[in-house]
Amino acid sequence: MVSNELSAPSTSQSGAGSLLRLLLDGRPRTRAELARATGLARSTVTPRLDALIEAGLITSHDEAMSTGGRPASRFAFNPAARVTLAADLGATHAAVAVTDLTGAPLATRRADLDIADGPEPILDWLVETGHQLLADAGRQVSDLVGVGIGVPGPVEHSTGRLTNPPIMPGWDRYDVPAKVGAGLHAPVLVDNDVNVMALGEHATTFPDEDHLIFVKVATGIGSGIISGGRLHQGAQGSAGDLGHVLAPHGGDATCRCGNTGCLEAVASGAAVAAKLREQGLDAQSSRDVVALVRAGNMAATQAVRQAGRDIGEVLAACVSLLNPSVIVVGGSLAEAGEMLLAGVREAVYRRSLPLATQHLRIVTSQTGSEAGVVGAATMVIQNALSPTVIDAALAKAPA
Amino acid sequence: MVSNELSAPSTSQSGAGSLLRLLLDGRPRTRAELARATGLARSTVTPRLDALIEAGLITSHDEAMSTGGRPASRFAFNPAARVTLAADLGATHAAVAVTDLTGAPLATRRADLDIADGPEPILDWLVETGHQLLADAGRQVSDLVGVGIGVPGPVEHSTGRLTNPPIMPGWDRYDVPAKVGAGLHAPVLVDNDVNVMALGEHATTFPDEDHLIFVKVATGIGSGIISGGRLHQGAQGSAGDLGHVLAPHGGDATCRCGNTGCLEAVASGAAVAAKLREQGLDAQSSRDVVALVRAGNMAATQAVRQAGRDIGEVLAACVSLLNPSVIVVGGSLAEAGEMLLAGVREAVYRRSLPLATQHLRIVTSQTGSEAGVVGAATMVIQNALSPTVIDAALAKAPA
Repeated sequence: MVSNELSAPSTSQSGAGSLLRLLLDGRPRTRAELARATGLARSTVTPRLDALIEAGLITSHDEAMSTGGRPASRFAFNPAARVTLAADLGATHAAVAVTDLTGAPLATRRADLDIADGPEPILDWLVETGHQLLADAGRQVSDLVGVGIGVPGPVEHSTGRLTNPPIMPGWDRYDVPAKVGAGLHAPVLVDNDVNVMALGEHATTFPDEDHLIFVKVATGIGSGIISGGRLHQGAQGSAGDLGHVLAPHGGDATCRCGNTGCLEAVASGAAVAAKLREQGLDAQSSRDVVALVRAGNMAATQAVRQAGRDIGEVLAACVSLLNPSVIVVGGSLAEAGEMLLAGVREAVYRRSLPLATQHLRIVTSQTGSEAGVVGAATMVIQNALSPTVIDAALAKAPA
Repeated sequence: MVSNELSAPSTSQSGAGSLLRLLLDGRPRTRAELARATGLARSTVTPRLDALIEAGLITSHDEAMSTGGRPASRFAFNPAARVTLAADLGATHAAVAVTDLTGAPLATRRADLDIADGPEPILDWLVETGHQLLADAGRQVSDLVGVGIGVPGPVEHSTGRLTNPPIMPGWDRYDVPAKVGAGLHAPVLVDNDVNVMALGEHATTFPDEDHLIFVKVATGIGSGIISGGRLHQGAQGSAGDLGHVLAPHGGDATCRCGNTGCLEAVASGAAVAAKLREQGLDAQSSRDVVALVRAGNMAATQAVRQAGRDIGEVLAACVSLLNPSVIVVGGSLAEAGEMLLAGVREAVYRRSLPLATQHLRIVTSQTGSEAGVVGAATMVIQNALSPTVIDAALAKAPA
């Protein structure tokens, strides 16, 4: 009756990948320290360190000991060893960067595009831009440890293919990893933009919080969930789909999904803009709404605050269900600032039990428009430096 | 910018605990097979196997090889090595069992109790019953690998103490692990009953499903969430609290939490019984409601189906948020059978996106009233046999 799924150990105890994991904190350590921390024999540690040095992932340097004895070699993670290509593809714009293994950008490019042009021209452009950015950063294609791509649609986790993406005509079931992998000769990971932003926000701003929800409020509404420190993708990879949850005050607003009363139909940037147009205002998008709020328009301010309340009523259910310690609100409508957040807080605190909100923080995104690129780099790094992937890669390499 | 939380390896690669983890599937293996599977040197495998044999957790036996060569020793997990004490404490009854390390019961006791009697008499009884059951099973207190207890109230994960439990007067902040540990000289794990039932259902019926929600519909309503194969407890341990989510058709029904429109106020066993009393029927509890449904009472049948719909509307939000592959419905009102489930299914399928319900199963609990005890044993076993706990225990033992 015992499940296969025992609780995973907090640190894996062996393998070259596990030595590397220990070294990721940046602190140099001696062979003796590494043996002590992993419980491995020094005779086992040495060949694994050699393999990691050979792969360029760690560097060694000798230090004179204070007691005047023989110098002891210390080993440290080398974040410059390899690079990632990280891309945030939106509906109308893209951001692409080459980063080192800490996620720090070495070369960056922003561009306008139309995702509806279809996968071939967009991904050809991405591959070409990748080569240019590698050149700008003075690196080779062979330095790439992987490519991470965030896209504005639902992604099947197991294949990296989009499934019925509503705003990406021509992309359904297209093999994004194969196309990009052929052009850049590296493993390619694809996920939806909100999951990628959640990863980025978690890694950069809240690395010590195990339970976080990232909500993106833009043309649509979606969320990415960090559970137990890891991205919760769900059985098919569709987890976090807040936009089509019934909003308690959703009424009979018609949604593009075919249902009525969805959160997205009343509180998204598109829904708020439509409401303001009915009042005779010129608002085509969430950016126009933000501009009106910043200009002090009262109707826009009230509409954004009400959108915050509607989102907060759905988030209150998420709080009861998941008990997160942080909710991060991002996306273009979040740039309206405190008005949206005030509405969210009002509803969450009214509808949640005290135990769940006692230590809950509700904040705006710190990574802002960088969240997508940072998250895509994080996705690649977390995968490429995981102990099992490192061990498998070194096992395949010639001894 | 790299998070500390890299994705955990699917199998840990070394340490005695990791050898044991490999052997938990029950298949005997030779030293050579174990070395190959873990990537460890045979000289490293041998002392770790010796430690596990010394601890009684694995057994070895020699087998003649078919080629007529020297017999090779094979090593296998020994589920009889140690035992757990597993307890399911309800509001008015308890079930307690001594189990082996697969969770199979060796001796069982059921009893009526009143949880409102407070922690001292209840836990004194539990310790005494534990000693009796150990004797019945022919085992010693020193054989106990741990004690697992499910309780009908919110538990602070880090301490195992209850926090403001509504139906457990006198238990608030009481140190349950210290009290029971003093009487049974073993580590004690405490969690709320629904989390424990989710663990039990996952381990016994759905071990291969990574994403599962267990909903208990009894006097109150709660849920336990399995995310990525592990229990999702949330930041304070209050995750899964479905009962106080706003029900879309909750109206202004007053809830014992002080809010209005909570799911528990319209769809719990207590709420359905109250509705039937208003219609002149004699229904004091969810068990009375189930009896009326089984007797063919139309009002009771309709009320249970409507409760199912109300629960389903809240579960639809959970499906969008978490994308589980299985929802298990348990608890005393679930014993009304297909009526409750039909209402749940109706609402979930109406309100969820096709991608999330494509492979979703909604089923009644298979472990039934055993779920609590099975889950409490599972909780102990998963903890006690985790690689880190095993390695720490062996490191402390004299060589």
